[in-house]
Amino acid sequence: MTGPTDRETLVLKLGGSVITAKDEPETVDEAALKRAVAAVAETDASVVVVHGGGSFGHHHAEAHGVTTTAGTRDPAGALAIHQAMVELDQAVVDTLQDASVPALPVHPLSAASRGGDGTLSLSTEQVECLLAEGFVPVLHGDVIAHEGDGVTVLSGDELVVALAPAVDADRVGLCSTVPGVLDESGAVVDRITAFEDVAAAVGDSDVTDVTGGMAGKVQSLLTLDVPAQVFGPEALSEFIAGETPGTTIHGGDRT
Amino acid sequence: MTGPTDRETLVLKLGGSVITAKDEPETVDEAALKRAVAAVAETDASVVVVHGGGSFGHHHAEAHGVTTTAGTRDPAGALAIHQAMVELDQAVVDTLQDASVPALPVHPLSAASRGGDGTLSLSTEQVECLLAEGFVPVLHGDVIAHEGDGVTVLSGDELVVALAPAVDADRVGLCSTVPGVLDESGAVVDRITAFEDVAAAVGDSDVTDVTGGMAGKVQSLLTLDVPAQVFGPEALSEFIAGETPGTTIHGGDRT
Repeated sequence: MTGPTDRETLVLKLGGSVITAKDEPETVDEAALKRAVAAVAETDASVVVVHGGGSFGHHHAEAHGVTTTAGTRDPAGALAIHQAMVELDQAVVDTLQDASVPALPVHPLSAASRGGDGTLSLSTEQVECLLAEGFVPVLHGDVIAHEGDGVTVLSGDELVVALAPAVDADRVGLCSTVPGVLDESGAVVDRITAFEDVAAAVGDSDVTDVTGGMAGKVQSLLTLDVPAQVFGPEALSEFIAGETPGTTIHGGDRT
Repeated sequence: MTGPTDRETLVLKLGGSVITAKDEPETVDEAALKRAVAAVAETDASVVVVHGGGSFGHHHAEAHGVTTTAGTRDPAGALAIHQAMVELDQAVVDTLQDASVPALPVHPLSAASRGGDGTLSLSTEQVECLLAEGFVPVLHGDVIAHEGDGVTVLSGDELVVALAPAVDADRVGLCSTVPGVLDESGAVVDRITAFEDVAAAVGDSDVTDVTGGMAGKVQSLLTLDVPAQVFGPEALSEFIAGETPGTTIHGGDRT
Protein backbone atom coordinates (compact mmCIF):
# COMPACT_ATOMS: atom_id res chain seq x y z
CA MET A 1 0.00 0.00 0.00
CA THR A 2 2.81 2.42 0.89
CA GLY A 3 5.21 3.31 -1.85
CA PRO A 4 8.92 3.89 -1.38
CA THR A 5 9.50 6.84 0.91
CA ASP A 6 12.40 8.62 2.55
CA ARG A 7 10.39 9.28 5.70
CA GLU A 8 11.49 7.39 8.74
CA THR A 9 8.80 5.37 10.53
CA LEU A 10 8.71 5.35 14.32
CA VAL A 11 6.64 3.33 16.77
CA LEU A 12 6.51 5.27 20.03
CA LYS A 13 5.00 3.99 23.24
CA LEU A 14 4.10 6.48 25.94
CA GLY A 15 3.94 4.57 29.21
CA GLY A 16 0.62 4.90 31.00
CA SER A 17 2.31 6.14 34.15
CA VAL A 18 4.14 8.82 32.13
CA ILE A 19 0.93 10.55 31.02
CA THR A 20 -1.44 9.91 33.95
CA ALA A 21 -1.38 11.10 37.55
CA LYS A 22 -0.07 8.26 39.68
CA ASP A 23 -2.07 8.93 42.81
CA GLU A 24 -5.43 9.97 41.36
CA PRO A 25 -7.61 7.46 39.51
CA GLU A 26 -8.46 8.32 35.91
CA THR A 27 -6.63 11.63 35.86
CA VAL A 28 -4.46 12.74 32.96
CA ASP A 29 -1.14 14.37 33.88
CA GLU A 30 -1.82 17.17 31.44
CA ALA A 31 1.54 18.88 31.82
CA ALA A 32 3.41 15.63 31.20
CA LEU A 33 1.16 14.73 28.27
CA LYS A 34 1.69 18.16 26.69
CA ARG A 35 5.47 17.87 27.08
CA ALA A 36 5.45 14.45 25.41
CA VAL A 37 3.19 15.67 22.62
CA ALA A 38 5.40 18.72 22.01
CA ALA A 39 8.33 16.35 21.46
CA VAL A 40 6.30 14.19 19.04
CA ALA A 41 5.23 17.33 17.13
CA GLU A 42 8.90 18.04 16.29
CA THR A 43 9.34 15.11 13.91
CA ASP A 44 8.67 14.77 10.19
CA ALA A 45 8.69 10.99 10.53
CA SER A 46 5.66 8.74 10.15
CA VAL A 47 4.70 7.92 13.71
CA VAL A 48 2.48 5.31 15.32
CA VAL A 49 1.73 6.18 18.94
CA VAL A 50 0.84 3.52 21.51
CA HIS A 51 -0.01 4.33 25.09
CA GLY A 52 -0.56 2.33 28.23
CA GLY A 53 -3.32 2.52 30.79
CA GLY A 54 -1.75 4.17 33.81
CA SER A 55 -4.38 5.19 36.34
CA PHE A 56 -7.18 4.64 33.79
CA GLY A 57 -7.17 1.03 32.71
CA HIS A 58 -5.32 -0.83 35.42
CA HIS A 59 -7.67 -0.49 38.38
CA HIS A 60 -10.68 -1.43 36.24
CA ALA A 61 -8.78 -4.48 34.97
CA GLU A 62 -7.82 -5.41 38.51
CA ALA A 63 -11.35 -4.88 39.82
CA HIS A 64 -12.66 -7.36 37.23
CA GLY A 65 -9.76 -9.79 37.58
CA VAL A 66 -8.75 -9.40 33.95
CA THR A 67 -5.15 -9.83 32.81
CA THR A 68 -3.48 -10.79 29.53
CA THR A 69 -4.36 -14.41 30.30
CA ALA A 70 -7.34 -14.28 32.71
CA GLY A 71 -10.50 -13.20 30.93
CA THR A 72 -14.02 -12.10 31.69
CA ARG A 73 -17.35 -12.62 29.94
CA ASP A 74 -19.01 -9.88 32.00
CA PRO A 75 -20.07 -7.30 29.39
CA ALA A 76 -20.25 -4.46 31.92
CA GLY A 77 -16.75 -5.23 33.20
CA ALA A 78 -15.29 -5.48 29.70
CA LEU A 79 -16.96 -2.20 28.74
CA ALA A 80 -15.77 -0.41 31.90
CA ILE A 81 -12.13 -1.32 31.20
CA HIS A 82 -12.47 -0.40 27.53
CA GLN A 83 -14.24 2.92 28.15
CA ALA A 84 -11.63 4.02 30.68
CA MET A 85 -8.93 3.41 28.08
CA VAL A 86 -10.95 5.16 25.37
CA GLU A 87 -11.30 8.19 27.64
CA LEU A 88 -7.52 8.38 28.11
CA ASP A 89 -7.03 7.82 24.38
CA GLN A 90 -9.34 10.72 23.54
CA ALA A 91 -7.20 12.98 25.75
CA VAL A 92 -4.05 11.80 23.96
CA VAL A 93 -5.56 12.23 20.49
CA ASP A 94 -7.01 15.66 21.33
CA THR A 95 -3.71 16.87 22.80
CA LEU A 96 -1.83 15.65 19.71
CA GLN A 97 -4.30 17.38 17.37
CA ASP A 98 -4.02 20.59 19.45
CA ALA A 99 -0.28 20.46 18.69
CA SER A 100 -0.99 20.00 14.94
CA VAL A 101 -0.16 16.29 14.97
CA PRO A 102 -2.77 14.60 12.69
CA ALA A 103 -3.71 11.94 15.24
CA LEU A 104 -6.64 9.54 14.87
CA PRO A 105 -7.67 6.79 17.32
CA VAL A 106 -7.38 3.06 16.62
CA HIS A 107 -8.99 1.03 19.41
CA PRO A 108 -7.63 -2.53 19.74
CA LEU A 109 -10.99 -4.00 20.88
CA SER A 110 -12.18 -3.06 17.38
CA ALA A 111 -9.14 -4.44 15.60
CA ALA A 112 -7.69 -7.45 17.42
CA SER A 113 -8.44 -10.79 19.02
CA ARG A 114 -6.59 -13.75 20.52
CA GLY A 115 -6.75 -17.38 19.58
CA GLY A 116 -7.23 -20.12 22.18
CA ASP A 117 -3.47 -20.30 22.80
CA GLY A 118 -3.31 -16.53 23.42
CA THR A 119 -1.75 -15.73 20.04
CA LEU A 120 -2.54 -12.15 19.06
CA SER A 121 -4.25 -11.46 15.75
CA LEU A 122 -4.08 -7.71 15.04
CA SER A 123 -5.38 -6.15 11.85
CA THR A 124 -2.75 -3.65 10.66
CA GLU A 125 -3.88 -2.79 7.12
CA GLN A 126 -5.92 0.16 8.46
CA VAL A 127 -2.90 1.38 10.47
CA GLU A 128 -0.70 1.23 7.37
CA CYS A 129 -3.34 3.06 5.32
CA LEU A 130 -3.75 5.79 7.96
CA LEU A 131 0.05 6.25 8.02
CA ALA A 132 0.27 6.37 4.23
CA GLU A 133 -2.45 9.04 4.19
CA GLY A 134 -0.42 11.19 6.57
CA PHE A 135 -2.25 10.46 9.82
CA VAL A 136 -0.75 9.41 13.16
CA PRO A 137 -2.62 6.33 14.43
CA VAL A 138 -2.92 6.23 18.22
CA LEU A 139 -3.41 2.80 19.80
CA HIS A 140 -3.59 1.79 23.44
CA GLY A 141 -3.77 -1.04 25.90
CA ASP A 142 -7.29 -2.46 25.82
CA VAL A 143 -9.42 -5.56 26.28
CA ILE A 144 -9.81 -7.80 23.23
CA ALA A 145 -11.86 -10.92 22.46
CA HIS A 146 -9.99 -14.09 23.44
CA GLU A 147 -11.15 -17.46 22.13
CA GLY A 148 -12.45 -19.48 25.08
CA ASP A 149 -11.84 -16.73 27.66
CA GLY A 150 -14.21 -13.87 26.87
CA VAL A 151 -11.99 -10.81 26.74
CA THR A 152 -8.44 -10.43 28.07
CA VAL A 153 -6.04 -7.50 28.32
CA LEU A 154 -3.88 -6.54 25.36
CA SER A 155 -0.94 -4.53 26.68
CA GLY A 156 0.70 -1.55 25.04
CA ASP A 157 3.96 -3.50 24.95
CA GLU A 158 2.36 -6.34 22.98
CA LEU A 159 0.99 -3.76 20.55
CA VAL A 160 4.45 -2.25 20.03
CA VAL A 161 5.95 -5.63 19.21
CA ALA A 162 3.10 -6.47 16.80
CA LEU A 163 3.03 -3.07 15.09
CA ALA A 164 6.76 -2.48 14.54
CA PRO A 165 7.20 -5.16 11.84
CA ALA A 166 3.73 -4.49 10.37
CA VAL A 167 4.49 -0.84 9.63
CA ASP A 168 8.14 -1.57 8.79
CA ALA A 169 9.31 0.66 11.64
CA ASP A 170 12.87 1.97 11.52
CA ARG A 171 13.04 2.62 15.26
CA VAL A 172 10.98 1.80 18.33
CA GLY A 173 10.86 3.93 21.46
CA LEU A 174 9.36 3.19 24.86
CA CYS A 175 9.05 6.30 26.98
CA SER A 176 8.84 5.05 30.55
CA THR A 177 9.04 6.49 34.05
CA VAL A 178 12.56 5.08 34.42
CA PRO A 179 15.55 6.32 32.38
CA GLY A 180 16.20 2.85 30.93
CA VAL A 181 16.67 -0.77 31.95
CA LEU A 182 18.53 -0.70 35.22
CA ASP A 183 21.29 -3.08 36.28
CA GLU A 184 21.64 -4.49 39.79
CA SER A 185 23.38 -1.34 40.98
CA GLY A 186 20.60 0.87 39.63
CA ALA A 187 22.62 2.19 36.67
CA VAL A 188 21.13 2.36 33.17
CA VAL A 189 22.27 -0.53 30.97
CA ASP A 190 23.54 0.89 27.69
CA ARG A 191 22.79 -2.01 25.36
CA ILE A 192 21.04 -5.38 25.60
CA THR A 193 21.47 -7.93 22.82
CA ALA A 194 20.38 -11.04 24.73
CA PHE A 195 18.19 -11.64 27.77
CA GLU A 196 21.10 -13.18 29.67
CA ASP A 197 22.70 -9.70 29.69
CA VAL A 198 20.15 -8.51 32.22
CA ALA A 199 18.38 -11.61 33.57
CA ALA A 200 19.92 -11.14 37.01
CA ALA A 201 18.85 -7.50 37.17
CA VAL A 202 15.32 -7.64 35.75
CA GLY A 203 14.26 -10.87 37.39
CA ASP A 204 12.30 -13.84 36.17
CA SER A 205 11.69 -14.16 32.49
CA ASP A 206 8.00 -14.82 32.94
CA VAL A 207 6.74 -14.47 29.38
CA THR A 208 3.20 -13.72 30.54
CA ASP A 209 4.47 -10.61 32.32
CA VAL A 210 3.68 -8.16 29.55
CA THR A 211 1.76 -5.40 31.28
CA GLY A 212 4.55 -3.51 32.87
CA GLY A 213 7.28 -5.85 34.03
CA MET A 214 10.69 -5.11 32.59
CA ALA A 215 11.63 -8.77 32.03
CA GLY A 216 8.74 -9.40 29.65
CA LYS A 217 9.33 -6.05 27.96
CA VAL A 218 13.00 -6.83 27.31
CA GLN A 219 12.25 -10.32 26.04
CA SER A 220 9.60 -9.21 23.60
CA LEU A 221 11.64 -6.25 22.31
CA LEU A 222 14.57 -8.62 21.67
CA THR A 223 12.41 -10.41 19.08
CA LEU A 224 12.27 -7.28 16.87
CA ASP A 225 14.57 -6.82 13.88
CA VAL A 226 15.00 -3.12 14.65
CA PRO A 227 16.48 -1.44 17.74
CA ALA A 228 14.20 -0.37 20.57
CA GLN A 229 15.10 2.33 23.10
CA VAL A 230 13.78 2.38 26.65
CA PHE A 231 14.16 5.85 28.15
CA GLY A 232 12.57 8.38 30.51
CA PRO A 233 10.31 11.32 29.64
CA GLU A 234 13.19 13.81 29.74
CA ALA A 235 14.87 11.91 26.86
CA LEU A 236 11.87 11.75 24.51
CA SER A 237 13.11 14.69 22.39
CA GLU A 238 16.49 12.99 21.98
CA PHE A 239 14.80 9.82 20.75
CA ILE A 240 12.60 11.77 18.34
CA ALA A 241 15.72 13.56 17.05
CA GLY A 242 17.35 10.24 16.17
CA GLU A 243 19.60 9.81 19.19
CA THR A 244 19.77 6.66 21.28
CA PRO A 245 18.98 7.63 24.88
CA GLY A 246 18.48 5.16 27.71
CA THR A 247 18.87 1.48 26.94
CA THR A 248 19.14 0.13 23.40
CA ILE A 249 17.54 -3.32 23.05
CA HIS A 250 18.47 -5.03 19.82
CA GLY A 251 18.28 -8.79 19.49
CA GLY A 252 19.24 -8.46 15.83
CA ASP A 253 22.76 -7.61 17.06
CA ARG A 254 23.38 -11.11 18.35
CA THR A 255 25.04 -12.52 15.24
CA MET B 1 -12.75 -20.14 15.13
CA THR B 2 -16.43 -20.82 15.74
CA GLY B 3 -17.44 -24.42 16.07
CA PRO B 4 -20.69 -25.87 14.76
CA THR B 5 -23.64 -24.31 16.52
CA ASP B 6 -27.42 -24.43 16.40
CA ARG B 7 -27.71 -20.73 17.13
CA GLU B 8 -28.93 -18.60 14.30
CA THR B 9 -26.75 -15.64 13.36
CA LEU B 10 -28.37 -12.31 12.50
CA VAL B 11 -26.93 -9.10 11.11
CA LEU B 12 -29.27 -6.28 12.08
CA LYS B 13 -28.95 -2.71 10.90
CA LEU B 14 -30.76 0.01 12.83
CA GLY B 15 -31.13 2.97 10.48
CA GLY B 16 -29.66 6.18 11.84
CA SER B 17 -32.94 8.00 11.42
CA VAL B 18 -34.74 5.25 13.39
CA ILE B 19 -32.73 5.88 16.58
CA THR B 20 -32.00 9.61 16.41
CA ALA B 21 -34.25 12.67 16.55
CA LYS B 22 -34.72 13.91 13.02
CA ASP B 23 -35.00 17.59 13.75
CA GLU B 24 -32.41 18.01 16.49
CA PRO B 25 -28.70 17.61 15.74
CA GLU B 26 -26.89 14.90 17.73
CA THR B 27 -29.89 13.84 19.77
CA VAL B 28 -30.75 10.19 20.43
CA ASP B 29 -34.44 9.27 20.13
CA GLU B 30 -34.25 7.42 23.42
CA ALA B 31 -37.77 6.00 23.30
CA ALA B 32 -37.23 4.63 19.80
CA LEU B 33 -33.79 3.26 20.72
CA LYS B 34 -35.21 1.53 23.81
CA ARG B 35 -38.03 -0.04 21.78
CA ALA B 36 -35.53 -1.35 19.21
CA VAL B 37 -33.23 -2.66 21.94
CA ALA B 38 -36.12 -4.41 23.72
CA ALA B 39 -36.84 -6.29 20.49
CA VAL B 40 -33.17 -7.29 20.11
CA ALA B 41 -33.11 -8.48 23.74
CA GLU B 42 -35.81 -11.09 22.89
CA THR B 43 -33.59 -13.27 20.72
CA ASP B 44 -31.25 -16.13 21.60
CA ALA B 45 -29.51 -15.74 18.25
CA SER B 46 -25.97 -14.46 17.76
CA VAL B 47 -26.44 -10.88 16.66
CA VAL B 48 -24.21 -8.31 15.03
CA VAL B 49 -25.72 -4.83 15.28
CA VAL B 50 -24.85 -2.08 12.77
CA HIS B 51 -26.26 1.41 13.02
CA GLY B 52 -26.23 4.46 10.80
CA GLY B 53 -25.45 8.07 11.61
CA GLY B 54 -28.80 9.82 11.62
CA SER B 55 -28.52 13.29 13.07
CA PHE B 56 -25.02 12.53 14.47
CA GLY B 57 -22.72 11.70 11.59
CA HIS B 58 -24.37 13.18 8.53
CA HIS B 59 -24.13 16.89 9.18
CA HIS B 60 -20.46 16.59 10.22
CA ALA B 61 -19.75 14.63 7.04
CA GLU B 62 -21.58 17.23 4.97
CA ALA B 63 -19.83 20.11 6.72
CA HIS B 64 -16.46 18.62 5.77
CA GLY B 65 -17.52 17.53 2.28
CA VAL B 66 -16.83 13.87 3.01
CA THR B 67 -18.77 11.06 1.30
CA THR B 68 -18.03 7.43 0.48
CA THR B 69 -15.90 8.64 -2.43
CA ALA B 70 -14.86 12.22 -1.53
CA GLY B 71 -12.28 12.25 1.24
CA THR B 72 -10.57 14.65 3.59
CA ARG B 73 -7.07 14.85 5.03
CA ASP B 74 -8.15 17.37 7.66
CA PRO B 75 -7.51 15.59 10.97
CA ALA B 76 -9.96 17.77 12.91
CA GLY B 77 -12.71 17.13 10.38
CA ALA B 78 -12.09 13.39 10.33
CA LEU B 79 -12.08 13.31 14.13
CA ALA B 80 -15.29 15.38 14.40
CA ILE B 81 -17.21 12.96 12.15
CA HIS B 82 -15.77 9.95 13.97
CA GLN B 83 -16.43 11.29 17.47
CA ALA B 84 -20.05 12.12 16.65
CA MET B 85 -20.55 8.52 15.52
CA VAL B 86 -18.74 7.16 18.58
CA GLU B 87 -21.03 9.20 20.82
CA LEU B 88 -24.12 7.68 19.18
CA ASP B 89 -22.50 4.25 19.34
CA GLN B 90 -21.90 4.60 23.07
CA ALA B 91 -25.62 5.37 23.56
CA VAL B 92 -26.54 2.26 21.54
CA VAL B 93 -24.08 0.02 23.40
CA ASP B 94 -25.13 1.38 26.81
CA THR B 95 -28.83 0.94 26.03
CA LEU B 96 -28.22 -2.63 24.87
CA GLN B 97 -26.22 -3.45 28.01
CA ASP B 98 -28.97 -1.90 30.16
CA ALA B 99 -31.32 -4.44 28.54
CA SER B 100 -28.90 -7.30 29.34
CA VAL B 101 -27.64 -7.58 25.77
CA PRO B 102 -23.84 -8.19 26.02
CA ALA B 103 -22.95 -5.43 23.54
CA LEU B 104 -19.40 -4.20 22.88
CA PRO B 105 -18.36 -1.50 20.39
CA VAL B 106 -16.38 -2.14 17.21
CA HIS B 107 -15.42 1.13 15.52
CA PRO B 108 -14.78 0.85 11.77
CA LEU B 109 -12.06 3.56 11.75
CA SER B 110 -10.08 1.12 13.91
CA ALA B 111 -10.83 -1.91 11.75
CA ALA B 112 -11.21 -1.00 8.09
CA SER B 113 -9.67 0.87 5.16
CA ARG B 114 -10.23 1.32 1.45
CA GLY B 115 -7.85 0.69 -1.43
CA GLY B 116 -7.29 3.27 -4.15
CA ASP B 117 -10.25 1.91 -6.14
CA GLY B 118 -12.55 2.25 -3.13
CA THR B 119 -12.59 -1.47 -2.34
CA LEU B 120 -13.37 -2.03 1.34
CA SER B 121 -10.98 -4.04 3.48
CA LEU B 122 -12.68 -4.85 6.80
CA SER B 123 -11.08 -6.99 9.48
CA THR B 124 -13.75 -9.41 10.74
CA GLU B 125 -11.75 -11.92 12.81
CA GLN B 126 -12.34 -9.81 15.95
CA VAL B 127 -16.08 -9.65 15.18
CA GLU B 128 -16.23 -13.44 14.79
CA CYS B 129 -14.29 -13.91 18.04
CA LEU B 130 -16.56 -11.51 19.96
CA LEU B 131 -19.62 -13.40 18.64
CA ALA B 132 -18.14 -16.77 19.53
CA GLU B 133 -17.46 -15.50 23.07
CA GLY B 134 -21.11 -14.54 23.46
CA PHE B 135 -20.85 -10.80 22.88
CA VAL B 136 -22.93 -8.64 20.52
CA PRO B 137 -20.55 -6.53 18.41
CA VAL B 138 -21.98 -3.10 17.58
CA LEU B 139 -20.60 -1.39 14.46
CA HIS B 140 -21.60 1.87 12.81
CA GLY B 141 -21.13 4.17 9.87
CA ASP B 142 -17.77 5.92 10.24
CA VAL B 143 -14.86 7.48 8.42
CA ILE B 144 -12.05 5.11 7.38
CA ALA B 145 -8.63 5.56 5.78
CA HIS B 146 -8.85 5.56 1.99
CA GLU B 147 -5.70 5.12 -0.11
CA GLY B 148 -5.05 8.37 -1.96
CA ASP B 149 -8.05 10.21 -0.45
CA GLY B 150 -7.37 10.64 3.27
CA VAL B 151 -10.50 9.32 4.93
CA THR B 152 -13.92 8.67 3.35
CA VAL B 153 -17.28 7.59 4.76
CA LEU B 154 -18.03 3.91 5.31
CA SER B 155 -21.81 3.51 5.41
CA GLY B 156 -23.79 1.18 7.63
CA ASP B 157 -25.16 -0.50 4.50
CA GLU B 158 -21.66 -1.29 3.24
CA LEU B 159 -20.86 -2.78 6.65
CA VAL B 160 -23.94 -5.02 6.53
CA VAL B 161 -22.97 -6.38 3.12
CA ALA B 162 -19.36 -6.99 4.24
CA LEU B 163 -20.28 -8.52 7.60
CA ALA B 164 -23.07 -10.91 6.57
CA PRO B 165 -20.83 -13.38 4.69
CA ALA B 166 -17.94 -12.91 7.16
CA VAL B 167 -20.03 -14.04 10.14
CA ASP B 168 -21.96 -16.59 8.07
CA ALA B 169 -25.24 -14.81 8.79
CA ASP B 170 -28.48 -16.74 8.36
CA ARG B 171 -30.59 -13.62 7.98
CA VAL B 172 -30.03 -9.89 7.47
CA GLY B 173 -32.44 -7.19 8.64
CA LEU B 174 -32.49 -3.48 7.86
CA CYS B 175 -34.76 -1.59 10.21
CA SER B 176 -35.59 1.62 8.39
CA THR B 177 -38.03 4.52 8.73
CA VAL B 178 -40.08 3.09 5.85
CA PRO B 179 -41.99 -0.22 6.06
CA GLY B 180 -40.07 -1.70 3.09
CA VAL B 181 -39.04 -0.94 -0.47
CA LEU B 182 -41.93 0.96 -2.02
CA ASP B 183 -43.23 0.56 -5.56
CA GLU B 184 -44.36 3.45 -7.76
CA SER B 185 -47.77 3.51 -6.09
CA GLY B 186 -46.24 3.65 -2.60
CA ALA B 187 -47.06 0.04 -1.70
CA VAL B 188 -44.47 -2.23 -0.06
CA VAL B 189 -42.86 -4.62 -2.55
CA ASP B 190 -43.04 -8.13 -1.12
CA ARG B 191 -39.98 -9.66 -2.75
CA ILE B 192 -37.10 -8.49 -4.94
CA THR B 193 -34.88 -11.02 -6.68
CA ALA B 194 -33.36 -8.73 -9.32
CA PHE B 195 -32.81 -5.00 -9.58
CA GLU B 196 -35.03 -4.80 -12.65
CA ASP B 197 -37.97 -5.69 -10.36
CA VAL B 198 -37.83 -2.24 -8.78
CA ALA B 199 -35.58 -0.10 -10.97
CA ALA B 200 -38.48 2.09 -12.08
CA ALA B 201 -39.61 2.65 -8.49
CA VAL B 202 -36.30 3.20 -6.70
CA GLY B 203 -34.62 5.26 -9.40
CA ASP B 204 -31.13 5.29 -10.81
CA SER B 205 -28.88 2.44 -9.87
CA ASP B 206 -26.02 4.73 -8.91
CA VAL B 207 -23.69 2.29 -7.18
CA THR B 208 -21.98 5.06 -5.24
CA ASP B 209 -25.30 5.84 -3.56
CA VAL B 210 -24.70 3.76 -0.45
CA THR B 211 -25.42 6.17 2.39
CA GLY B 212 -29.16 6.07 2.37
CA GLY B 213 -30.51 5.75 -1.14
CA MET B 214 -32.76 2.75 -1.69
CA ALA B 215 -31.35 1.90 -5.15
CA GLY B 216 -27.82 1.33 -3.84
CA LYS B 217 -29.18 -0.53 -0.81
CA VAL B 218 -31.21 -2.92 -2.98
CA GLN B 219 -28.32 -3.53 -5.37
CA SER B 220 -25.84 -4.31 -2.64
CA LEU B 221 -28.26 -6.55 -0.70
CA LEU B 222 -28.93 -8.52 -3.91
CA THR B 223 -25.26 -9.61 -3.86
CA LEU B 224 -25.74 -11.53 -0.59
CA ASP B 225 -26.33 -15.29 -0.53
CA VAL B 226 -28.88 -14.95 2.28
CA PRO B 227 -32.20 -13.08 2.34
CA ALA B 228 -32.33 -9.52 3.62
CA GLN B 229 -35.49 -7.88 4.96
CA VAL B 230 -36.15 -4.14 4.78
CA PHE B 231 -38.85 -3.15 7.25
CA GLY B 232 -40.02 -0.40 9.59
CA PRO B 233 -39.44 -0.08 13.35
CA GLU B 234 -42.87 -1.53 14.17
CA ALA B 235 -41.85 -4.79 12.46
CA LEU B 236 -38.50 -5.32 14.23
CA SER B 237 -39.95 -7.85 16.69
CA GLU B 238 -41.39 -9.85 13.80
CA PHE B 239 -37.99 -9.97 12.10
CA ILE B 240 -36.29 -10.99 15.34
CA ALA B 241 -38.91 -13.75 15.79
CA GLY B 242 -38.06 -15.24 12.40
CA GLU B 243 -40.84 -13.76 10.31
CA THR B 244 -40.30 -11.93 7.02
CA PRO B 245 -41.83 -8.46 7.38
CA GLY B 246 -41.50 -5.69 4.80
CA THR B 247 -39.57 -6.43 1.65
CA THR B 248 -37.50 -9.58 1.17
CA ILE B 249 -34.43 -8.98 -0.99
CA HIS B 250 -32.78 -12.17 -2.14
CA GLY B 251 -30.61 -12.25 -5.22
CA GLY B 252 -29.83 -15.89 -4.51
CA ASP B 253 -33.39 -16.65 -5.64
CA ARG B 254 -32.67 -15.80 -9.23
CA THR B 255 -31.67 -19.25 -10.47
